[in-house]
Amino acid sequence: MTQPSLRCALMGKNRLSGPVVGVDCGGTNIAIGVVDEKGRLLGRCKRKTKAMEGRDKVIERIIEGISRACDDAKISFKSVTAVGVGAPSAVDWKNGVVLHAGNLGWKRVPLRDILSKKLDRPVVVDNDVNVATFGESRVGAGKGRGDLISVWVGTGIGGGLVLNGQLWRGPLHTAGEIGHVIMFPGAGPGHRKLEEHCSRTAMVRSMMLLLGHYPDTMLREFLKRSDDGEETSIGSGVIAECMEKGDPLVTSVVHASADLLGLAIANFLTVLSVPTVILGGGVTEALGKPWLHRVKESVEQHVFPSSLRKCEVLRSELGDDAGLLGAAMLAREVVGSE
Amino acid sequence: MTQPSLRCALMGKNRLSGPVVGVDCGGTNIAIGVVDEKGRLLGRCKRKTKAMEGRDKVIERIIEGISRACDDAKISFKSVTAVGVGAPSAVDWKNGVVLHAGNLGWKRVPLRDILSKKLDRPVVVDNDVNVATFGESRVGAGKGRGDLISVWVGTGIGGGLVLNGQLWRGPLHTAGEIGHVIMFPGAGPGHRKLEEHCSRTAMVRSMMLLLGHYPDTMLREFLKRSDDGEETSIGSGVIAECMEKGDPLVTSVVHASADLLGLAIANFLTVLSVPTVILGGGVTEALGKPWLHRVKESVEQHVFPSSLRKCEVLRSELGDDAGLLGAAMLAREVVGSE
Repeated sequence: MTQPSLRCALMGKNRLSGPVVGVDCGGTNIAIGVVDEKGRLLGRCKRKTKAMEGRDKVIERIIEGISRACDDAKISFKSVTAVGVGAPSAVDWKNGVVLHAGNLGWKRVPLRDILSKKLDRPVVVDNDVNVATFGESRVGAGKGRGDLISVWVGTGIGGGLVLNGQLWRGPLHTAGEIGHVIMFPGAGPGHRKLEEHCSRTAMVRSMMLLLGHYPDTMLREFLKRSDDGEETSIGSGVIAECMEKGDPLVTSVVHASADLLGLAIANFLTVLSVPTVILGGGVTEALGKPWLHRVKESVEQHVFPSSLRKCEVLRSELGDDAGLLGAAMLAREVVGSE
Repeated sequence: MTQPSLRCALMGKNRLSGPVVGVDCGGTNIAIGVVDEKGRLLGRCKRKTKAMEGRDKVIERIIEGISRACDDAKISFKSVTAVGVGAPSAVDWKNGVVLHAGNLGWKRVPLRDILSKKLDRPVVVDNDVNVATFGESRVGAGKGRGDLISVWVGTGIGGGLVLNGQLWRGPLHTAGEIGHVIMFPGAGPGHRKLEEHCSRTAMVRSMMLLLGHYPDTMLREFLKRSDDGEETSIGSGVIAECMEKGDPLVTSVVHASADLLGLAIANFLTVLSVPTVILGGGVTEALGKPWLHRVKESVEQHVFPSSLRKCEVLRSELGDDAGLLGAAMLAREVVGSE
C-alpha cells in the first residue's frame, strides 16, 4: 500500500529532465548550484546576502548568482528546467510565500511568483531546513529511506521530517521545530527549550558559566587568543579541539548536551515510530563520530518501544551543500509531478 | 496539492457500500457494532474478552458477537461487506498481524487472515487507539479535519495521529505513544514519562502520597467507603466529584497533571505543526470542560510558533464507541480503496 509518490521517489523517477538550479538563501550567504538528473552538482556560485540592502537587491543577487552558477557549470540558463529555493523562514510552500524571515527582514514575500516571472521558469520555495532534509533523503545519508527526521545543531537547533517519502511541513508550515520543544517544565525563561541547552550558543554559555570551576581548562587559551575575550570566539572548531584533547569542562558540557539531545530525539521517534535520524549542522560536522555515538546511546536508552532501539543515527553526508542540492531536488520532483 | 486519498476521505467518498462491522477488542471487553454508510450505528453487542481462555475462544466470541450485533441491527451477516478490528497491541496493519498484545497474551497473531477465512469477508486490523482516533476523525470531534492528534487519558495514556487525512502508524507501527514520552530527564524510574505523571493511575498515586498533608480531603471518605481501603477504589468518577466540590488535594494533583499534559501535547504539536488535538479516555470523560480548558491553556502557553496558539483542544465525541465506529470506518475505507 505504498503511495505512488513514495514509490516514484525511492525509485528516483523524476519526470522532469534537464539541469535544475538550487538556491540556499541564508541570512549571511546565498549558495547556488546547478544540479543534474542524478543529483550531481555541475557548477556553483556563492554571494553575500546583504539583506540590509532590501528585498529587491537580494532577489537581483539570486538571479545574477544563478547566471554565474550556469557559467560555472558550462551550461546556458535556457536548458534549466526548474529552480528551487530554501529560505530561512516558515514558508507557505504551496503558494511559494516566505512568511516571516527574521534574518532577511521579510514578511509575506511571494518569492515563487516574483522569481518565476523574472526567470520564466517554474520555481519552488520551501524552508531552508526542509530543503536540506530533503537533500539528505534523496542523495545523502537518508537515501532509499521513506521515513526519517533530521536535526541540525549549530547556532540554533532546527529539524525536518520526511514521512512516506515526502516532506511533512504541517498545515501551519512549521513542522520539525525540535529546538523549541520544552525539555524542562518549570525551568526559568531561557532554560526550558532544547535549543537553550544543546545549541552551540547554549553550550558556550554553559562553559562560560562554569569557567571559574575549571582553572585549567584549555578554553582560557582560546579566550586569551581572541581580541576581545568574548565567548563568540568559541566556535564549533574550538569545542572539537578541546574535546579531542579531553578538556574536562568542555567534555562535561558536550556530553550533557548530547545526552539531552538524544532524549529529545528519542521522544520525537517515539511519537512518530520512525527509526532514522540524520544529524547535521556545524556542531555535528566539527565533533563527528564521538558526538554521534553519544547521541545514539541516549536515543537508544530513551526511545519506546524497544523495537525502536534498533534505530539509525546518521551523520549528514551533504554538509553545507545539503540546502542547495535539496532545493534543486525538490524543484525537480515537485515540478515533475505537477 | 491535496492527495486524492485526503480529498476522498474528507468528502466522505467511500466506494464500499453496504453495512460494515467494527470490533473493539480490549483486554476486558469486546464491543461490536454494525455501521452504515453514513457512520451510524445500526446495532451492537458486548462480550467479555476472557483472554485467559485462549486465543481461539476469544476469536470464537468475536465471531459469535458479530452475529448477535447483526441480529440487533436486524440485518443478515450476508449483507456485511467488511470487518474492522481494533486490538490492544502494536499491529502490523498492512499484514493484519497483532504483534504483541500483553492484555490478551497474544504474540504475532495473524488475526486478519484468521478472521477473514472464518467470516469470508475482507478484514482490516489495527491498533485500538488508532481506530478510535480514526473514528473521531471521520464521524467525531475531528470530522472534516485532515490533520490531528488524539490523546486518551485513562488507566494509561495513549495517542494517535491523522496526517493528510490518513492514520500515521510509522514504519514500526507504534506512532502516537505520547504516554511514553520522557518529561523529566534524570528523574527516577517510574517518574520520567508522561504516563507516569498524568494517567489516572499516576494521579491517584500522587494523591495517596500526599494524603497525610491534607487531613480534610474528601478522598478519605471514598477510601473508607471501599471494602479494602485500596487506592483502586479511586476512579475517574470519584476524582470528578472531588473536583466539583473543590477538594484542595485532588484539585492540585489534577491541575498539575493537566498542565504537564498540555505541555507534552504542545511539544507534539510543535514538531508536527498540527493545530488540532482531540482528548478522550475515562479521565477526560469524567472531568469534562474544566479539564479541557486547563489542558488547552497549557498547550497555548507552550506551543511554538505563536501561530499554533490558535489550536483546537476538542473533546472526543464518540466516547466508548470511538473504537468500534473507527474500526468499521477504517475497514470501509481501506477495503473500498483496494
